[in-house]
This record gives sequence, structure tokens and C-alpha cells, in this order.
Amino acid sequence: MASTFGTRLRTTIFGQSHSEAIGCVVEGLPAGIEIDHDRLGRFMERRAPGRNRFSTQRREADAYRIVGGLNERGLTCGTPLAALIENTNTRSADYDELRRVPRPGHADFGAWVKWGDARDVNGGGHFSARMTAPLCVAGGIAIQVLEAKGVRVAAHVAQVGDVLDERLETRDNTPAGRARLARQVELIESRAGEPFCTLSEEAAEAMAKEVDEAREAGDSVGGAIECVCTGLPAGIGGPRYDGVQAAIARICFSLPAVRALEFGAGFEVASMRGSQNNDPFEVRDGHVVPATNNAGGTLGGITTGAAIAFRLAVKPTPSIALPQRSVDLETLKERELRVRGRHDPCVAARAVPIVEAACALAVLDSWLAFPPASDDLNR
Amino acid sequence: MASTFGTRLRTTIFGQSHSEAIGCVVEGLPAGIEIDHDRLGRFMERRAPGRNRFSTQRREADAYRIVGGLNERGLTCGTPLAALIENTNTRSADYDELRRVPRPGHADFGAWVKWGDARDVNGGGHFSARMTAPLCVAGGIAIQVLEAKGVRVAAHVAQVGDVLDERLETRDNTPAGRARLARQVELIESRAGEPFCTLSEEAAEAMAKEVDEAREAGDSVGGAIECVCTGLPAGIGGPRYDGVQAAIARICFSLPAVRALEFGAGFEVASMRGSQNNDPFEVRDGHVVPATNNAGGTLGGITTGAAIAFRLAVKPTPSIALPQRSVDLETLKERELRVRGRHDPCVAARAVPIVEAACALAVLDSWLAFPPASDDLNR
Amino acid sequence: MASTFGTRLRTTIFGQSHSEAIGCVVEGLPAGIEIDHDRLGRFMERRAPGRNRFSTQRREADAYRIVGGLNERGLTCGTPLAALIENTNTRSADYDELRRVPRPGHADFGAWVKWGDARDVNGGGHFSARMTAPLCVAGGIAIQVLEAKGVRVAAHVAQVGDVLDERLETRDNTPAGRARLARQVELIESRAGEPFCTLSEEAAEAMAKEVDEAREAGDSVGGAIECVCTGLPAGIGGPRYDGVQAAIARICFSLPAVRALEFGAGFEVASMRGSQNNDPFEVRDGHVVPATNNAGGTLGGITTGAAIAFRLAVKPTPSIALPQRSVDLETLKERELRVRGRHDPCVAARAVPIVEAACALAVLDSWLAFPPASDDLNR
Amino acid sequence: MASTFGTRLRTTIFGQSHSEAIGCVVEGLPAGIEIDHDRLGRFMERRAPGRNRFSTQRREADAYRIVGGLNERGLTCGTPLAALIENTNTRSADYDELRRVPRPGHADFGAWVKWGDARDVNGGGHFSARMTAPLCVAGGIAIQVLEAKGVRVAAHVAQVGDVLDERLETRDNTPAGRARLARQVELIESRAGEPFCTLSEEAAEAMAKEVDEAREAGDSVGGAIECVCTGLPAGIGGPRYDGVQAAIARICFSLPAVRALEFGAGFEVASMRGSQNNDPFEVRDGHVVPATNNAGGTLGGITTGAAIAFRLAVKPTPSIALPQRSVDLETLKERELRVRGRHDPCVAARAVPIVEAACALAVLDSWLAFPPASDDLNR
Repeated sequence: MASTFGTRLRTTIFGQSHSEAIGCVVEGLPAGIEIDHDRLGRFMERRAPGRNRFSTQRREADAYRIVGGLNERGLTCGTPLAALIENTNTRSADYDELRRVPRPGHADFGAWVKWGDARDVNGGGHFSARMTAPLCVAGGIAIQVLEAKGVRVAAHVAQVGDVLDERLETRDNTPAGRARLARQVELIESRAGEPFCTLSEEAAEAMAKEVDEAREAGDSVGGAIECVCTGLPAGIGGPRYDGVQAAIARICFSLPAVRALEFGAGFEVASMRGSQNNDPFEVRDGHVVPATNNAGGTLGGITTGAAIAFRLAVKPTPSIALPQRSVDLETLKERELRVRGRHDPCVAARAVPIVEAACALAVLDSWLAFPPASDDLNR
Repeated sequence: MASTFGTRLRTTIFGQSHSEAIGCVVEGLPAGIEIDHDRLGRFMERRAPGRNRFSTQRREADAYRIVGGLNERGLTCGTPLAALIENTNTRSADYDELRRVPRPGHADFGAWVKWGDARDVNGGGHFSARMTAPLCVAGGIAIQVLEAKGVRVAAHVAQVGDVLDERLETRDNTPAGRARLARQVELIESRAGEPFCTLSEEAAEAMAKEVDEAREAGDSVGGAIECVCTGLPAGIGGPRYDGVQAAIARICFSLPAVRALEFGAGFEVASMRGSQNNDPFEVRDGHVVPATNNAGGTLGGITTGAAIAFRLAVKPTPSIALPQRSVDLETLKERELRVRGRHDPCVAARAVPIVEAACALAVLDSWLAFPPASDDLNR
Repeated sequence: MASTFGTRLRTTIFGQSHSEAIGCVVEGLPAGIEIDHDRLGRFMERRAPGRNRFSTQRREADAYRIVGGLNERGLTCGTPLAALIENTNTRSADYDELRRVPRPGHADFGAWVKWGDARDVNGGGHFSARMTAPLCVAGGIAIQVLEAKGVRVAAHVAQVGDVLDERLETRDNTPAGRARLARQVELIESRAGEPFCTLSEEAAEAMAKEVDEAREAGDSVGGAIECVCTGLPAGIGGPRYDGVQAAIARICFSLPAVRALEFGAGFEVASMRGSQNNDPFEVRDGHVVPATNNAGGTLGGITTGAAIAFRLAVKPTPSIALPQRSVDLETLKERELRVRGRHDPCVAARAVPIVEAACALAVLDSWLAFPPASDDLNR
Repeated sequence: MASTFGTRLRTTIFGQSHSEAIGCVVEGLPAGIEIDHDRLGRFMERRAPGRNRFSTQRREADAYRIVGGLNERGLTCGTPLAALIENTNTRSADYDELRRVPRPGHADFGAWVKWGDARDVNGGGHFSARMTAPLCVAGGIAIQVLEAKGVRVAAHVAQVGDVLDERLETRDNTPAGRARLARQVELIESRAGEPFCTLSEEAAEAMAKEVDEAREAGDSVGGAIECVCTGLPAGIGGPRYDGVQAAIARICFSLPAVRALEFGAGFEVASMRGSQNNDPFEVRDGHVVPATNNAGGTLGGITTGAAIAFRLAVKPTPSIALPQRSVDLETLKERELRVRGRHDPCVAARAVPIVEAACALAVLDSWLAFPPASDDLNR
């Protein structure tokens, strides 16, 4: 169903921007896992609004409460984990106009077509970017499960407007290339608390300027996120429709604002020759490994042991202060709309942990559902 | 499961490149549909190998036989439809070396990691591009179901190597823009039998030259496909993880060779302002419609009534005649590989109907699973 | 996944007997439904413990809080509904011995095998009968949705120990038979608040005596529930594995303590002739209807328009005060166990609303997933 | 979807009684399994019609052809297995009357309500008992996979009309009880080729007489099947809705004609005390085991290590020669129907391998989906 993701690790998110609470239920987590709540809290903090002038001024703790799925020692007990985040700061009055006039570029419109007056229009309802908070609870736990297996997930702001960050070293899978990537991942992690988590500090400053300019103009600006997942064994993922690439694509294209996604060499492959693009195999420490990683970590949907590497674009926030052309749904007359309320002028900055969470959920689900197994009955 | 796609319209593909037969089972087709076998045969013909010098010289009829799911008058009867394509021309001897030496860039490697000696290595087994034939049977039927509702699906070769075709007019949703797109769709359909189905004949000729050069060099070349789906009502698709965009992404990133995908304005959104990217609403014939279509046909995963528009990149065929570095899986020694056998030097040309089929399956499934309904119990 | 039921109406339950809270998430409810909380509260009250001397003395309000899925007017808004019940009265100390010594007849044992020390042993964890409370929230809402369509779900205690209640008139589908059944359903509903909801008051008194005797003996006693669902149109349900009968069977055999289930003539059919068992068709008010209902409301899994009728047996509560033979899981030595804590001596009485809830969820899901539709795209 | 069963081992059946072919696709079989086709053929033979005077005189080889899913050495290769059975002996003329007049007790009626004229009426279409042939291909393979793990599945005709066979020894789980059950399983297997596979030869003879009498009277007769699955480890199955009991119930209540099902002590539990019904635990060879098996092999849906034991009732064949009351669907006038064509007078005899197949599919799927695992990532 629409609000559930995954095959063996099934995450359902519930609630709306202004309902009593929002939350998630995660089925299929391995039993016996100890959640590090300090880390999970810091992870949630990165997504949380109101941390600096670049994000919406709605301030909420995003404090989660795990109400089920842990035993009395706080370990996962094998049955569904449920987490709750109370909605404390809801100003529905901001949205009265939006009941009649859909915001250009926003999911309001589809909800109206589908559910009519029954839809929850406040704050975008279930379509609100706020629904990425429970996704981050689930994904933050998945990240911890993966890290215990030596897997790292890290993303950075690759672009805001015309400002580009440096790229991650994902296409060189030699020991030297992997070492460079590992250092970049550490750098990203050390800068995770910055307003713009980038490799280059100069890029971060230029991005801040870009966003400031957009906000001052009553406008918003788009961006891009680059993400890697390192340390995965080869062999994860199902053939055909349940490949790792497809799983990541499904969840990423479900995130608000995502319009484009590429793995490895991405759109460049269209102009490449096979002899350039193919990643030759070599032997390292007794394992067969690809020497390069134009593939972005998978072949036929199955992990190769090289880093999963992808880049996605997020559109500019649709809610802007500038006047826009829209329609009054009651009178069916065209009408100018000026969106009030608190909105990020650029979602790319806060999207970094969300993309990490999405990646971790897709990868962990693939691992659990389609492990690099030989005999399924001897598990 | 890995070889099944869809929620309400579930398509399972089975078989391997060199098994006795390949085929598909489709659950959830509406009852009472008459399949136009002439049209379906022509559709299959577009994907079939051996039609011209630009595709693999493996010649097979791709003749499908529908063995279940039709009543005695040939209409769909409401229960699973099953189609079979016999494998008649299998030259397993070509693949003996590949059992020991995985092809760079090919899914061989993942199958070896996952299933070891039990894998079917011949012709790529279940990972073979030949498995897109049953996908085209299912998708070709979905296209006919959609057409009966006024929906068109059309794709063209947008790029081969450095040669670009013209773009489809997808971002102007005014009556004039829609009319231009409709003419382009007709043009595509009239050129569907060409070696390179493009809008521009000059582009097609240049693409042919590009592919000839790659083949003569023992190499292959990548490409891109652009696809539209027009005529859909607004309101199709589920919120969050079952949006139409996510459904198309999942199936497209499952197709062999796909590495990148963008909807509407795609990666361009990263450098756009909200005031540029947002599609204003207006009223036309009593309906609320977006005046432009940077969104590519969906908001929040739900169709807006504008054309669904996407572009994807396919990598160059991994099987090339040039020598490549690989590894002998038995000795774990590095070894040069020259791939023999029959392989397309560029998959983009034959991928056009495959992308149409994939799009139709994703869209029809979304329609059936998440219709623009108001009262689910009064259906 | 294990804690989720349904195809189109997906209910996930979460939490454990002694976790912070328990609850459910329901995806796929029609939008625009107004929940009658007075009725739902009364329905929950029927399941709640501590209402009389026949049920466990654990007293909890079973007060649910709907935290997501309603719009600001309290109507379902089309996205997942989430309900929470706080666990306020948890006495984990009662269960310390049970960590080492599994209760005969209880799911403790399987949880230990599967999850070892990570399991939540307190109060039976996720296997606790308390988990039927969120099932009743979901099912109680499903009952209201069905009633708005003219459908009634009603169950009674058919047996406790050797005491039998009268049977419902389910096998006569003539107008006279249907009228008798309708009167019985009203009688059941009027007696829903009784300790033993039966057709016959004498049976209820004898059942009370039977349970008193069992409790005084430190023992427990089994029972049976009979349930009907009337007013359904013909044509609901999928062929083969998604028939209504199979859906009800799956959820009923998931309820704690259920060991047997029969529809219509049930086990009697083994000794019947076809000429006796077949339900002849006749025409009534322009509709084709079965004159009798030995089938119990479905043929080939699809509803016939007659009442769905089934009977199930629940085993005696496994937690009894009498000494039992068990094993210390640490020393692997056999050991006598006397279960302390608060336990119903007979689950049949409180199981009545649970069976109604389960039936409603299975039937409503079947209706939504496999409606009596003709054209799936004209919905 | 309706014609697919299972979570990790997904079996889809396709085709209709009189379509070109019928078959199945099985996803999720472990790789590397060698199918013993002699054994599978003999298994299919037990279900096949026309073997003796007690079954329908439609003679067909039931010869299956595996067209996909095997590697060149005939081992399962990890991707979907597909099997085909051609329909060679179809006499559609027999069914012309049935297009207008539904058979009492038959699924014809639901198909007409649901799909109207589009339904395939010939031979019952997809609802035909013939569709149990592909189920037996899939189940026969599952049985072989289970046997390689030391698991046996065996069923016998427990009842035909008023004739009862002896019961299997399923409730004594002591070494002596298990030995008796093992001898009974061997006896069943040695008698698998008999017209009535029973423990008692006298019962088989009396059953033959009962069926002869029914057929001579133009009538049919019901029956019951008892089935066990021995050798399973403890810990298989998911909590709540994915327990082993629920999985077996779902597939069994999907089989044509099944109306009742009970596990272990079954309906008897309604009149038992907890002290009688609870199975005490003891230690044997270092394992904790239940000493008795009133539970029928599961607690809370999870296997205990004792035999899974169940009994189900099948109704008398609805197609009988005696005149019956039905309705002309065109004129909506009541009309007498005499069913012609070839029909078993009692389905119980041929149902034995079908129930074994169903049990094996449910159990193997549960094992693969919910293994007795501790660490899901170290598989």
C-alpha cells in the first residue's frame, strides 16, 4: 500500500502535518539490536526544521518515542517497532486559503482530485515534508543496523542553484580510490551539522548566498544530493524488479521534490562506448572486484561490492511568497495566490539525512529480502 | 518477489535466455478485453532481434502463444493471462567461456555470487535482454487497454552516443503545446518500424553511423530514450511510496542497462527557481489544469492530467568484441576476455518499445490500484 | 509481513503486552468516513478485561487515541489511520519466572526458539491476547464502514465446555429463514453487554457456572464462537487463494487459541450427499439467489449473497493456576510451573467482539480488493 | 493477487479447464535443487483423473513440462520455475447448457456475477478442479525440497460419507508415539497408489462401496482428509497473521470443496479443560519438546517441533446427474438442471495428494519467510 515501503523490512509511515501525531511502524528488523538513541537523536536533529535561517521557522523537537518493538532492556524484540512523534506546533489557520486555492507545484492538487473535501489540507496533510521525520526514525535505525555490519551511508549537498560542490570519488574502485572515498565520507560526517553539508566549505558559503538571494526574492531554489553506501558485500539484491537500483529508485522518487536520479556514470553513459563504461574485473585479497565503478555499485540489480553511488535532483520548494497563478476550486475562477506560512527556500540542505535514511531502508530491505545466500534453508 | 512487478496488475516473467521457453503471467487485467493480435505482433516485432544490421543477429520469431486467461471468444476472462514464447535458436556453446570468466559490465557476476554453480549462465540466463520479450507481451496488452481509454504511450530514441534527436514538446501544457505533442506522437508512431525511431530523420541517419562505427571498432555505444504518456485523467497514483513516478522509476531501473532517469524538467530543477519551475494552474473546459508541465505529469506521485514525460539513459552494451580485463572464477587469476556471440552494439534502438511497455505496465497498475476514485465501495 | 493483515485494507498491529503502548495502522480505508466514537468505545468495552468475574482482573481503559488519518472534521482523509492505546497497568514482575519456564500451550516457547533472549517475554509480548485490542479498533471501524452499506456482523458464544447455545439460522436462505436470522442478530446485539453473549439466557447461565467451576479448580475451559455476516452483495472475493473463505480463515487462525473453523454445513459435509448439500438457485426480486445456505455464503471463494456463516473453536486458556510440567530453559531441567498473574479462565466470552472484528476486516478487505466489479477502469 | 499463494515461495497458477494449457510459476525456490522427475510424475499420477472407476473419466496425461527455472544440468537456478501442462482433451460442448444455467454448489455462479459474459464457463474455467494439477507440480517440488531436510508430508482419506478410516497418531509426541506415527506414514505412502489411500484396508473397501452407491444414485458424497507434516524444526512461522496454522488454513480453504479445518484436538478443545489440552514440555536429547501434541504442531503460529496435524472436510462434488433446481440466467426463470459431463462422485480420494501439495507449499513458504533464525544478516 501507498504508505508502506519494503519487502522484508516494511516501513509504514502514518499521520499528517497537523494530525495529533505522526510516526512509523517497522516490521522485519532483526531481533537483539540496541538502538543508540543519542546518535538517532542527532540524526533526527539534522532533518529538523528551525535550526538555522535556511529552513522553515516551524520549531518542533522532532522527539520520537518508541512505543513498541523493544524488550525491557531496550533491544529490538523481533516484532514490529513503532515510533511516535507528537505534533505540537500546528497553526492550521495558515492553510485556510489553501483549501480553496491549490499551490502550483504542490501535491495539494492531487489530494483534492482523489479525496475531495475529505482530504486533510492542513500543512499538506500526509504529503507534507514533515512526514520525512518518521522516515528518518526508521532510516536512522537502519543506518545503525548497517553500520554494525561495516556499512556506511553518507550524502552531501551536491548542488544548490548554480553552485556545485565537489563530487565524491565513486568511480575509482582501486584501493587508492576507495581510500579517497573513505576520507570524503569522514569529512561529510564531520560536517553533518553544518547548514549545508558539503565537501567544500567554499561551496557551502556560496550555497548559503544562493538561498539567501532566493528567499529575499520571495522565491526558492532547487538542488542536488549525492549519496554513497560503502562496505556492502557483493550479491545483495533480487534479479529484475527487485534489484537494489530499483529499490533505491522507488523510495527516492517517492521523496517530496525529487525529479531525477542517476547511478554511477548516470546520464553520461548515453555518450560512452562500452569499452569505456565497462568496469573490468580484477582479483583483490582473493575476491573478484570491479576495478572501476561506472556502474554505481550494481549489475543486473545485484551489488558488486563497489560503493553504491547515486545523485538526485530536488526541485525548488513549491511554496513561495511570490504571487502565482492558481484557481479557486469552488468558483473555478483563476486567482492569484501568495503562499504564507513557514517554508524552506531550499529543501536540498535538509534533504541530506532524508536521502541517507531512504538509501539505508532500501539497502537493508534488499539485504534481508535478497541476501547473497547460497542455501536458504540453512539460515 | 524479484521477477514480479505491480500491485493490482501483477506481471511475472519467467524463463531464461536458453531455457525451453520464456513467458509471462499477468494477474489483474480487466475482464472482457479483446486483444488485437496484429497490433501486438507488430509491437513485438519492434523489439525482436535480427531485424536489421543494428541489432543482434539471433533471429527468433518472438512469436507468443497465449495459453491461459482468454475465454472461447478470445476475450480476457478475469483470471491470469499467461503467454509463452518458445526458445528455438539457442547456441549455448557460445557461452562456455563465460561460465568461467564474467563479462565486465554484465549481470553474470552477481548471479555467480548469489547462486554459484547453480546459476544459468547461458545467454545471461534470467538476466538476458531476451527477457524483455515477455515484458513486451504484457506491456503491449497494457498499451491496448490504455488506448481504449484514450491514453497513448510513445517513446523515441533521444540520443545515441553524441547524436541527439529533437525533444518532445512535454513542458507546454497549453492547447497549442498539447497539439504539438500529439503531432509528434503520431510522427513517432509512423516511424516505429525504422531502425532508429526518432523525430528527426537526420538524427536517425547520424545514429546509424554512430552505431556502425562502434561495431566496426568491436565496441558498443550508449543512448537515451524519451517517453510520454498522454491522455491520463488527474488523480491516478497513491501517496508516498506508490506514486506513479515511483512506479515508473522502479520498473525502468529494472530494465537492463538503465542508469539514469528524469521526469519533466529533470536535473535542470537543481538550478531553477520555484517561480520558474512551478506549473501555474488554470481552468480549461471546466477542469483545473497545469498550464505548463515542468513536473512531468505528477505532483506528490499523483497524475495532474498533463503528459507523463521522462527520459532515461541506457549504457553501452557490455558484451563487446574488444578484449577486456576479467578474472577466471576457478583459478582466480586475471584473464583477458573477448566476448563472442551475437550482441546489439547499441540497445537504445530496440529499447524503445520496451520502455513503452514498462511505462504502460506501471501506469495501468497505478490506475487499477490507485484510481482517481471517491467512494471505493460504490465501484 | 507477520503483523499485517489484508491486501487493500492493510491492518498492522504493533506493541506488546507491556510495551509503552500498543496500536494499529490501517491503510486503505475509504475517505470521508465519520467514525462513531461512542459505538467504537462500546465495542472496545466488550473486549476489555476486568468487566466481570469471568475475565482477567487486569483493568485498563482500552482507551484508544486516533493520532493520524482523520481530517480536521474527524473524517477519514484517505491516508493511513493510526490508533494508539497506552499501556498503563503493567506488572512485569509477574512474568519473571516465565522468562525461564515456558508456559505449556503458550506462544512463549516459539518466541524463545526464534528470538532467544531478545524476545519480550512480559505478558506474552506481541503474542499477548492484549494485542486483540488494536485489532478491535481496526475491526470496529470496519464494522461501521460495512454497516453504512447495510452489512451486519454478529457473533455469539456458541459453546463453553459442554454447554451449547442455540445455533443461528444460517442454512435457510428463504425470506422466512433470513427474517429469523435477522431477529437472532438483533437479539445478539441486545445482549452484547452480557458476560456471555448468547441466544439463550439459560445457556449463558450454564456457561457462567462452567467457567466458575474451572476457575475454582485452578483450571480453564474452551469454547466456540459462531459468527454471521449478512447483507453482502454477491460477487465479492477473488478466485483461488483470495477467496472470502480463505481470508476469514487466515485471520481467524491467527487469533490466539483458535484451533478449528468451519463454514456453513462444515464438517457435516463429509457425510452428506451432493443432492443434500447443494444449494438450489431460485429467483427472488429479480436476483438469482441460493434457496439454502449449506455453503456458508461463498462458492469458489466468492460471495453468493447469502449470509457468511462460520463457527470456530477456541482452546482453554493455557495460563492456569494448576501445577504443570515444563522445563527450565537455562538448566534444561524439567520443572513444575504454577502460572501466576491475571488470566481469563475462558477466552470464548471476550472473543465474541474479536471474531466480529476479524470477520469485518477480512470481508471489507475482500470487498475493496475484489469487488463485484465489471469494468475496473470505470470506477 | 488471487491466483498467487505465498510470501517468499510464491506460486501463481494460470489457465483454465479448457484453455490451451495450464501451469504454474514458482518464485523463491532455493537454487541448486535437483528435481526427481520420476517421483514428481508418480505424485502427479495420484491426482490425475481417469485412473479408476471412482474418478472422472476425462483422461489426460497431466504431463508437465518445465520450461524455465532450471539450468542446463536440470537444477533449479534461482530464478522463477515455470511448468506447463497442455490441455489436450477438452469437450467444450458439454458445457453449453451451463453457460445459461449455473450448477448449484459450483463456483460458476460467482464467476457470472463478477465477470458476466467475459467469464470462461467451459469446465468451470479457472475454478476447475483441474487447476489443482499445476498446484501439485509446485507442491510436489516443495515436498522434495522438504524431504531433503528430513521433513515428510503425508495424508490419507479419513472419511467418505459415513465410513471412517483410523486416525493418525498425532497427539502423542513421546518417542513411542512418534514411532507409531512414522510407521503410519510409511503405510500411507505404500498405499498411495490405491483408489482410496487409507490406513485400514477395510475402510478403503467400504469407501469404494459408498462411492459406488452414490454414483449409481446419480449423486455424490463428501469426505475428509487427515494430513501430517513431521520432522520440522521448532521456530518456523511468523507471529500473528503469518503463523504456519494461518498459512495452511489460507491455502486449504482455497482448495475446491473445503468447508472445515481443524488442527490437533480441533473442535474438541471447546469442551476441554486447560489442564487436559496444554501440552507439557519436557527435555529430550537436549531439546525442549512438547510431550503431547494437542496443539497440532504450532503455538502462536510457530512450530513446536511436534508434527503439524490437521483434518479437513470436503463437500460432495456439486456436479451430479440428479435433477436440480436452478435458474436460466437469460430469462431469469427457474429451470431444472441435469449436469452432464465427467465428474468425480467423491473428491476425497483424489484430494489426498492435493492436500499434501498445499501443506508442503504453506510449510516451505513459512520456513523460507519466517525461519527459526537468530541473525537475519548472517545468513
